Amino acid sequence: MIYSGDIHTILMLDSDLLVRRIKEGTVIDHIDEGKGLQVLDALGINGKDGGLITIALNVPSGKYKKKDIIKVENKFLHDDDTSKLAVIAPKATVNIIKDYKLVEKRRVALPNEIDRIFRCSNPDCITNSPEHIESVMDVINKENLVLKCRYCGRILDVKHLKYN
Amino acid sequence: MIYSGDIHTILMLDSDLLVRRIKEGTVIDHIDEGKGLQVLDALGINGKDGGLITIALNVPSGKYKKKDIIKVENKFLHDDDTSKLAVIAPKATVNIIKDYKLVEKRRVALPNEIDRIFRCSNPDCITNSPEHIESVMDVINKENLVLKCRYCGRILDVKHLKYN
Repeated sequence: MIYSGDIHTILMLDSDLLVRRIKEGTVIDHIDEGKGLQVLDALGINGKDGGLITIALNVPSGKYKKKDIIKVENKFLHDDDTSKLAVIAPKATVNIIKDYKLVEKRRVALPNEIDRIFRCSNPDCITNSPEHIESVMDVINKENLVLKCRYCGRILDVKHLKYN
Repeated sequence: MIYSGDIHTILMLDSDLLVRRIKEGTVIDHIDEGKGLQVLDALGINGKDGGLITIALNVPSGKYKKKDIIKVENKFLHDDDTSKLAVIAPKATVNIIKDYKLVEKRRVALPNEIDRIFRCSNPDCITNSPEHIESVMDVINKENLVLKCRYCGRILDVKHLKYN
């Protein structure tokens, strides 16, 4: 019977099954299409710890849309991870699995301030000097992901920023 | 009933289902554990064409082993892809799906000669000059992945080579 569904149903079943079957870990769902590998990279998820990881890209989601999904065993997101995720994939949901159960489901929220993650694009900014001062950026427009460097005041578009 | 299996069974079902459900494409199975993302990168699989991609890392395979699996819609491997795959993941199998059917299953085989893919580690080699001569390397030991540059004769260990 399970084979008779369309690809969407099957993938949801799949994702459901996999959610159920990791003992401890995190499922990041509703990642914007095309951002899955970037999230993987930004969060340092590479499978080197031996835990099971499943990444699905371009998964049908609703009638006309697609999404990416990442499921990772034995990984829980820290604040920095959540901030990165919010910036890269603002519609993502984070599902926490413990002892095979879904114990928490939450949306990511863009913080008011983003520390460390991005490098200011102003080469003369003190955060790019050899003194290794960590970047601090205020999120001045959450909808369009516009940041402002707290040190040099430069207005920054997240899409063009490099990671630290 | 499907929920009662252990994680191994479920993942095999999952992979089986997904194999069945892509209309056209390739499933690369039995990738050495930890090499999945490298294969993805080397083969330029990034989801930008909108096709469904599933990557599973550290999937239980047999009693004590793990493997990585990549399933990619609307992608068929060219000779260069197969050579790269053979070098990165010599135990991989390539499953070709057409019109929802598994039409071909084959092991990758290391070629006798590898062109273009790797950069010779000798900075004075003519393939590293500004003349853009493409690298040609003979595979002199298939078991230990030892190559020899046909231009400068340097013996090369694949593990330490950079991609072109």
